[in-house]
Amino acid sequence: MVYDLIIVGSGAAGLSAGLYAGRYNMKVLIVRGEFGGESATGGVFWNYPGTGPIDGYELMRKMESQAKDVGSELIDGKVLDIKRNGHCFDVVVQDGNKPIEHFGARTIILANGAERRKLGLPLEKELLHKGVHYCVTCDGPVYVDKTIAVIGGGDAAVKGVSLAGQFAKKVYLIVRGTDLRAEPVNIEEMKKLGDKVEIIYGTEVKELVGVEKLEKIILTKTYNGSDELLLDGIFIEIGTLPNVTIAKSLGSNIDDKGYVMVDNSMKTNVDGLFACGDAVNFFGSFKQAITAAAMGAVAATSAYQDYKVHGELCQIHWIPTELEK
Amino acid sequence: MVYDLIIVGSGAAGLSAGLYAGRYNMKVLIVRGEFGGESATGGVFWNYPGTGPIDGYELMRKMESQAKDVGSELIDGKVLDIKRNGHCFDVVVQDGNKPIEHFGARTIILANGAERRKLGLPLEKELLHKGVHYCVTCDGPVYVDKTIAVIGGGDAAVKGVSLAGQFAKKVYLIVRGTDLRAEPVNIEEMKKLGDKVEIIYGTEVKELVGVEKLEKIILTKTYNGSDELLLDGIFIEIGTLPNVTIAKSLGSNIDDKGYVMVDNSMKTNVDGLFACGDAVNFFGSFKQAITAAAMGAVAATSAYQDYKVHGELCQIHWIPTELEK
Repeated sequence: MVYDLIIVGSGAAGLSAGLYAGRYNMKVLIVRGEFGGESATGGVFWNYPGTGPIDGYELMRKMESQAKDVGSELIDGKVLDIKRNGHCFDVVVQDGNKPIEHFGARTIILANGAERRKLGLPLEKELLHKGVHYCVTCDGPVYVDKTIAVIGGGDAAVKGVSLAGQFAKKVYLIVRGTDLRAEPVNIEEMKKLGDKVEIIYGTEVKELVGVEKLEKIILTKTYNGSDELLLDGIFIEIGTLPNVTIAKSLGSNIDDKGYVMVDNSMKTNVDGLFACGDAVNFFGSFKQAITAAAMGAVAATSAYQDYKVHGELCQIHWIPTELEK
Repeated sequence: MVYDLIIVGSGAAGLSAGLYAGRYNMKVLIVRGEFGGESATGGVFWNYPGTGPIDGYELMRKMESQAKDVGSELIDGKVLDIKRNGHCFDVVVQDGNKPIEHFGARTIILANGAERRKLGLPLEKELLHKGVHYCVTCDGPVYVDKTIAVIGGGDAAVKGVSLAGQFAKKVYLIVRGTDLRAEPVNIEEMKKLGDKVEIIYGTEVKELVGVEKLEKIILTKTYNGSDELLLDGIFIEIGTLPNVTIAKSLGSNIDDKGYVMVDNSMKTNVDGLFACGDAVNFFGSFKQAITAAAMGAVAATSAYQDYKVHGELCQIHWIPTELEK
């Protein structure tokens, strides 16, 4: 199947792009990836202009239904690769254990965001979901009356503590630096939890200890006379790494922070290739649902303008990829 | 009264900035101007990601209440002038016939958008609201079973025809160019009105004729054998002109299209001065509520960063302005 536009990712950037492109009467396919991206797991949004307080997951469902209403198609699956094919792109998609599928498109919008940053410690992968987590909104509620730690010093970490404090009996916040890099209102919100929260500054996690599940962590500095902290679970909130593998393989320029480089139209240097959302650093470290949605709308508009001029050049002929041979 | 931040304008850009700055615990004043800016008079938004179809006025009321909820203050009035006063700004405000007021601020966000572009014809001002209008959403409904014309060839004009067609018995669309520069879905929507709509291409309005009210217009080309068109009303939808007077007087750079020049942080070249929304051309001609809201959020974040560093320098002493002497 050949589309006018294929969008990779279904966070605020991808869904907003799907909404706008659908309104331009483009034939659009959105390959979902992890539905809703960062926004869907971010808990309540107090600061999305125009909705009032809304759960991130619900916000993404709204955007998804708006994109569908204008005719954009959505499929589950992960984009394994995108290859240039004449004036088109050949998008290789796999959904779970189903056979690999190919979709053609004149234009591509990369809105596949970023991956959670890992501590890079032994056992971190083995203990995933066995006491090691990357999303308080998703997994926090299982720690009722337990003792947990949140690792990180930014907004996500501080908001994570506030949320975890609703369930857990004790929450440590382990901060590498000497202060918090979070919104003042979020810090104040966290402080309302009082003694339930203890902040340990200038300290990192040196080791994860556990067999079937996490039992304790070893710190780089002693705290209350010990470098051990007995815990039921930890939540690692130390930021994200942009997904740039596909952009790189297509020849897109990457900026010095490691993000896909785009101009004010969300164009990359590659003909027909656009990028937006957390995969780009367009507004610097300020990465919000509202900026992602705006960038998605801009990217769709640019893709439409490209399509109007070059759309007819795309006459795709399938070439089997390495994965299919 | 001295604020950390004064925002000029209460459209999507200004209100979003007020929401974000309030969350940064800044002391914020929003000088409303025309409430809701372009968005409030734009009719139903089908394409604002996250809300579903929503009336522009209602969308702006939502954003306003979000800004208020985080402590941003709003006042009615028009900003007559802003002057540099040491490390602060001195903002001169007038609300109707009330005495002029002064407010101080370390940082300013200009979110005062754009004015409707005029035809520049004799009687255009005299016949305002007497058959001459600039907003179909606002004034269209009075033309039930009447014959009207919309002037323009862009999205606003085409959407205006669709809306006016709900009331009027006949709608002419007078287009200067040879085609429409509107979203395909909007053109299709208009076409559903069938014979009710007649499009006159390659033609301009040469003259407005009427005494107490508009009676007819004279065209630059004949149409159906006459250069006269008998009409009950016209709606001029030929774009907008950015409000840059204050930015200019403060020494801000203006770009070659006549908009306030900003970088990716919405900073102007003037210390402490930021701009966003329709007053800037950051995303080119693509000017939407979603992009304005995103720019407002970015501008507030930049103003907050400026305030954290320079806020204490602002020790204002009032100097009477020319207007008060």
